Amino acid sequence: MDFAQVKDYLVNLQNNIVAGLEQADGGSFRRDSWDRPEGGGGTSCVIEEGNVLERGGVNFSHVHGKGLPASATAARPELAGRAFEAAGVSLVLHPRNPYAPTVHMNVRFFAAIKEGAEPVWWFGGGMDLTPYYGFEEDAIHFHQICKHALQPSGSEYYPRFKKWCDEYFYLKHRKEPRGIGGVFFDDLNQPDFVTCFNLTKSVGDQFLAAYVPILQKRCNLPYGERERDFQAYRRGRYVEFNLVWDRGTLFGLQSGGRTESILMSLPPIVKWRYDWSPAAGSPEAKLYTDFLIGKDWLPLD
Amino acid sequence: MDFAQVKDYLVNLQNNIVAGLEQADGGSFRRDSWDRPEGGGGTSCVIEEGNVLERGGVNFSHVHGKGLPASATAARPELAGRAFEAAGVSLVLHPRNPYAPTVHMNVRFFAAIKEGAEPVWWFGGGMDLTPYYGFEEDAIHFHQICKHALQPSGSEYYPRFKKWCDEYFYLKHRKEPRGIGGVFFDDLNQPDFVTCFNLTKSVGDQFLAAYVPILQKRCNLPYGERERDFQAYRRGRYVEFNLVWDRGTLFGLQSGGRTESILMSLPPIVKWRYDWSPAAGSPEAKLYTDFLIGKDWLPLD
Repeated sequence: MDFAQVKDYLVNLQNNIVAGLEQADGGSFRRDSWDRPEGGGGTSCVIEEGNVLERGGVNFSHVHGKGLPASATAARPELAGRAFEAAGVSLVLHPRNPYAPTVHMNVRFFAAIKEGAEPVWWFGGGMDLTPYYGFEEDAIHFHQICKHALQPSGSEYYPRFKKWCDEYFYLKHRKEPRGIGGVFFDDLNQPDFVTCFNLTKSVGDQFLAAYVPILQKRCNLPYGERERDFQAYRRGRYVEFNLVWDRGTLFGLQSGGRTESILMSLPPIVKWRYDWSPAAGSPEAKLYTDFLIGKDWLPLD
Repeated sequence: MDFAQVKDYLVNLQNNIVAGLEQADGGSFRRDSWDRPEGGGGTSCVIEEGNVLERGGVNFSHVHGKGLPASATAARPELAGRAFEAAGVSLVLHPRNPYAPTVHMNVRFFAAIKEGAEPVWWFGGGMDLTPYYGFEEDAIHFHQICKHALQPSGSEYYPRFKKWCDEYFYLKHRKEPRGIGGVFFDDLNQPDFVTCFNLTKSVGDQFLAAYVPILQKRCNLPYGERERDFQAYRRGRYVEFNLVWDRGTLFGLQSGGRTESILMSLPPIVKWRYDWSPAAGSPEAKLYTDFLIGKDWLPLD
């Protein structure tokens, strides 16, 4: 395994994605570099009140520390407490237009280090889409690109990582999927470093192709107060997932990460309302009945 | 210990508080009773778009189950997994006027049950105040009533529970207190049931006296968009605390509680903004410099 190589890739990935998003938005990202007192640092690229993106961030971080938090690995709790090194790119984008979905993408690399032993390393990542008003063709497009990204690594990956995504991005306290899914993977270290790295790179590299066409298609649709209101209500679910269930967020907050960078994932305006549900048959109800259902968007061949 | 007696008290407490708040607001609370599939149930009283209260809820719940969640007791992790019975009243109120503070109050009773052993029981509770624009006299009034509520149980309780409140309602990831504090206690079972029950009752009974005068004094102060905006921003901290750190919220969500009742604590409109801080010397900065500082609001005699 070659940490420097992964780090170089991630730095470039952040730059490429920010450049692509600036082109799509027409506005520019603010760029903040920061150090982590316990070791390492990162660069946060943020946009607020853009033309298309109401709020969003693309983070790069490279941190190291003495005690790996339990939230860093689901599969190998025995590694908790080891010295570790971790690097990743993580992004969340909240477009202003309620017809344009929120998106999340993350690629990460971990190494758990112990003197006198081989380091244990693994990759994780994925991307997933959270519409407010769903479009079947958008869901299909997003999943097609996800599948396309994994295809070179083997056709077994997409179905496995698609299912994993549905399981991971699930609000247990609402019995509700976060969105229409995508792909998610963690603890990936087989068969070897090069294969895992290539798979992870392909996910990162395909992000713009998966999301930007959807953003462009939806960002100029006319909308009114009703749609903004529903968007603000549904964004509450995004907050609930990220703060209650997301291991990435908890890892960041538990490991002394930079709070403002971690919480860039939270939407700009959010509403909570008691025991609300949309009128049957309304466009808002369609989100629940047709999209938040853990569906297979592509034929499972 | 007498569970039925505690339950009767809590049911009455909820009714009294709702009646007092309806008088203060002029509007009325909606009342929903619900069953918990795993055992027990509750009644949620909710107000939204009231005259004074933008959103708020007063919950009563009485639940029992087979496995006590770890979040239920900080002091005795060995009780996790036992059968349990729990009852409590919990409230959060978010006034519309940014000069009126958000408030939280909770009183609760737990019993961990094991066949062939005496049940282990304890009380917990407290109240704490979260201003957006602080007023020293409000903080002093709130703490005076807290102290007054605990005085009959012994003068040692207020300083201890005041400190505990400051420690508990603290956003570690922000290095920031949630508000100006109040009192907090948990795992209270000494010297005996009657003494603990009396103390807990006194906290519940003093809530209206602690909060309503502050609400009435502030709810008609003139405000504009600037103050509403700061309130929405600061409410984000309330969401962060409740979803990331609050054991009561996590207990509810982990134990299959009624999500809409638990999340009544979340504010109606919330904003997140990247790396924002108020201009030095502004009224907004005063909140940070003069109020969110873990201060002793009463002389420590």
